[in-house]
Amino acid sequence: MPAPAQFLDFIDANATRFIKRLADAVAIPSVSGDAAYRKDVFRMATFLESELKAVGCQVRPVALGKHILDGQELELPPALLAEIGSDPSKKTILCYGHFDVQPALKSDGWDTDPFVLTIDEKTGQLIGRGSSDDKGPVLGWVNILQAHKELGLPLPVNLKFCFEGMEESGSEGLDELIAREAGKDKFFDGVDAVCISDNYWLNTRTPCLTYGLRGLSYYKLTISGPSRDLHSGVFGRAVHEPMTDLISLMGKLVTPQGEILVPGVEDLVTPLTDEEFERYEALDYGIEDIETSAGASVALSNEKAAVLMGRMRYPSLSLHGIEGAFSAPGAKTVIPAKVSGKFSIRLVPDQTPDAIDPLVFKYLNAEFAKLGSKNKMHIENLHGGKPWVADPKHWNYVAATRATEAVYKTTPDLTREGGSIPVTLTFAEQLGVNVLLLPMGRGDDGAHSTNEKLDRSNFIKGRLPSPDEASRVLPLRGGRHKDVK
Amino acid sequence: MPAPAQFLDFIDANATRFIKRLADAVAIPSVSGDAAYRKDVFRMATFLESELKAVGCQVRPVALGKHILDGQELELPPALLAEIGSDPSKKTILCYGHFDVQPALKSDGWDTDPFVLTIDEKTGQLIGRGSSDDKGPVLGWVNILQAHKELGLPLPVNLKFCFEGMEESGSEGLDELIAREAGKDKFFDGVDAVCISDNYWLNTRTPCLTYGLRGLSYYKLTISGPSRDLHSGVFGRAVHEPMTDLISLMGKLVTPQGEILVPGVEDLVTPLTDEEFERYEALDYGIEDIETSAGASVALSNEKAAVLMGRMRYPSLSLHGIEGAFSAPGAKTVIPAKVSGKFSIRLVPDQTPDAIDPLVFKYLNAEFAKLGSKNKMHIENLHGGKPWVADPKHWNYVAATRATEAVYKTTPDLTREGGSIPVTLTFAEQLGVNVLLLPMGRGDDGAHSTNEKLDRSNFIKGRLPSPDEASRVLPLRGGRHKDVK
Repeated sequence: MPAPAQFLDFIDANATRFIKRLADAVAIPSVSGDAAYRKDVFRMATFLESELKAVGCQVRPVALGKHILDGQELELPPALLAEIGSDPSKKTILCYGHFDVQPALKSDGWDTDPFVLTIDEKTGQLIGRGSSDDKGPVLGWVNILQAHKELGLPLPVNLKFCFEGMEESGSEGLDELIAREAGKDKFFDGVDAVCISDNYWLNTRTPCLTYGLRGLSYYKLTISGPSRDLHSGVFGRAVHEPMTDLISLMGKLVTPQGEILVPGVEDLVTPLTDEEFERYEALDYGIEDIETSAGASVALSNEKAAVLMGRMRYPSLSLHGIEGAFSAPGAKTVIPAKVSGKFSIRLVPDQTPDAIDPLVFKYLNAEFAKLGSKNKMHIENLHGGKPWVADPKHWNYVAATRATEAVYKTTPDLTREGGSIPVTLTFAEQLGVNVLLLPMGRGDDGAHSTNEKLDRSNFIKGRLPSPDEASRVLPLRGGRHKDVK
Repeated sequence: MPAPAQFLDFIDANATRFIKRLADAVAIPSVSGDAAYRKDVFRMATFLESELKAVGCQVRPVALGKHILDGQELELPPALLAEIGSDPSKKTILCYGHFDVQPALKSDGWDTDPFVLTIDEKTGQLIGRGSSDDKGPVLGWVNILQAHKELGLPLPVNLKFCFEGMEESGSEGLDELIAREAGKDKFFDGVDAVCISDNYWLNTRTPCLTYGLRGLSYYKLTISGPSRDLHSGVFGRAVHEPMTDLISLMGKLVTPQGEILVPGVEDLVTPLTDEEFERYEALDYGIEDIETSAGASVALSNEKAAVLMGRMRYPSLSLHGIEGAFSAPGAKTVIPAKVSGKFSIRLVPDQTPDAIDPLVFKYLNAEFAKLGSKNKMHIENLHGGKPWVADPKHWNYVAATRATEAVYKTTPDLTREGGSIPVTLTFAEQLGVNVLLLPMGRGDDGAHSTNEKLDRSNFIKGRLPSPDEASRVLPLRGGRHKDVK
């Protein structure tokens, strides 16, 4: 049901308080990947617990045990399990977010102190580490609860929250927590659907709902031969060179047009339907957006839908690099003794790492045998994750579409993301319910980059950017997409 | 003419004095590549100047100017131009060597202090930095002159010496010096042939004379596209990936069997003659030697001559690595924006960098065009040098063969080296005379490695190793071959 006008007016009237709350959160440098900041992640958990309690939630911090970081054994920051409302006649929605952040130093190239929320009055940007990823979205829920509480409005749904403090460092302990709390009479019992606000609009103009993520299979292909690096003057054309074999094999994985050459891999892709194709045609995104974002005219196709589907609904194979070869500037005449090529395949339904691995292994073993080399080959899957696609016609998406239309006066784009957000799949599989990705920020927020920002209008009250703003197609910044893999 | 018995006896009788002289030289850490040791390179020049004068040479230190090292402007160590004898009825032989050394720290893994000459009484090894590369060979000339002087024997030839102190750091200033002193009435005027003692036996058993070196063309092939590194989740299968293009091109350069695929490159190789083939068949070297040396059974052929010719008289193409790609351990899902593949071709007559470059450039441009990529390709030659082959039937080689036979009681192997010693080509081209490479040390001396050694028998008086010694086929150590490129 659409938000009442009273509620929207309250949000507008209280913008300064909400921004103050975000500033307080940004001021806590809750960097989960650096032992020196671990106390701040705990401080941030306490801050958030207190904010949630103040707006009426019951909150339970859950200890997640210990881990080793930078050679030290450290206590993991707690996850916060919170809830408000238990009306059996209402749906129960579980919201996920995280209160830890990526590292940030002024010296990385920030224009302002990353842990002081800075308001750019001209652009309306709220600049600071965590503003968009993910303190802004997490506090968005607090703002909403505060509005309902102070206005005396009933919540239209029961809400549960799962907020963690290790998302930027592999979500340690989270999967186990979800598994523990997923049964009858456990915390997640009764959840009807999940909403995750931890990704971004496709562009800077149009709100979107995200209903799919690609999976991943990351491979390490090692060729070894000599017992030590050799000199090309002495051994060139006398021995089988591991680099020659490796480059030959890596060259047989994917074409310059992006087609995967491993037999069977493309066959596992769910066939495209007309309806789906139209969905890509309808997206507010063009070739110029991707080329602006990549910084060069290098799109694989001039057809918008083809490029978007390449990113969202087809698998991709990327060659990342080689470990063990000469990688420095300059000229060194080495024959490396052992080299490992790294490549990965982004997976889409019905592909899974378990289905793809045997195809990759079989193909590379067969191709290596054809080389007639006396070197040794070893292929391994370093890590992987399944792809995820939800039904965008589910009531969870219908409700999110209506809410977006009410706030932004436009129908949200329905997108899939090319990367991975592993917790999405964990919730979908463990709870067996529909999961919705509902981004708060824009595609140019620079989540893992310098000068991370959240637009004031995205944080306070959704509205479409002015025509003037919309005409600025900003380049997308690196690292803004959630992807721990 | 063979050395008189009187001379050989003197050498044996004075072994201790000769070893003491080598120990004095090794004690001066004349590391040319480290500014902190520059004063020691000068000290070494002074030491050598004094030793040469003591045995009757006229010596002229020549200043070579300044250069920048480690951010400091430093005076280059002088070259020493020395001579003894000017009998117009005798041949004049120019001997080249160098008195600087590679860096060495005990902590690199040396068993003994690298700058204290340590005698292993059991093996007869003289262990210390510079023992074999190249202080031992340089002092060998001093020992010979001392013997002639103290015995009152006339020298069979006039001798000139050119000793430098920057060989391990690119021989800065040497080419210019040779050019300056190469004309009429200049220092090198009247030189009939050149002898360079700065390489090694092919194995640990058999003396050799070296009459050829391969040249080099080192290439950097760059593919660039996006303006910054991209995330494979977001851009995989949406843009042309530079790594895909680069790997595809690098895979078209050489087969796993070592055949170079660049059209025309193999065609420039001088055809093999029967006589030459027999020379390779005659070498005291086997598949097991190369496989012991490489540490694995990875020889390209089971035919000894094929493997030796692959190293010595055919070109080789090695893929060294990639700059700009992901080269660290672990798994990173990056699409690198700009990647440079490094590869080089070892050249043999009649190949030259000038002849090979256009073939490589044309081929890669044509292959890149076939990829249909929107990325950009750039190919450049980083550096190169021509191959060198001398006539092993020249009197210079005949004389060296007889001398080796007199001392070692065996006919030396006639070898070519797979690497480069640029000064060889400079002397051959500037002076227009025959150049002979006459190694003093063995293939396992470890010239640029830890525990560098020179066998006592190689330094003092050549003799064949005992059958017991000969049965130990020692693995060849890394970096022992002279190759500044």
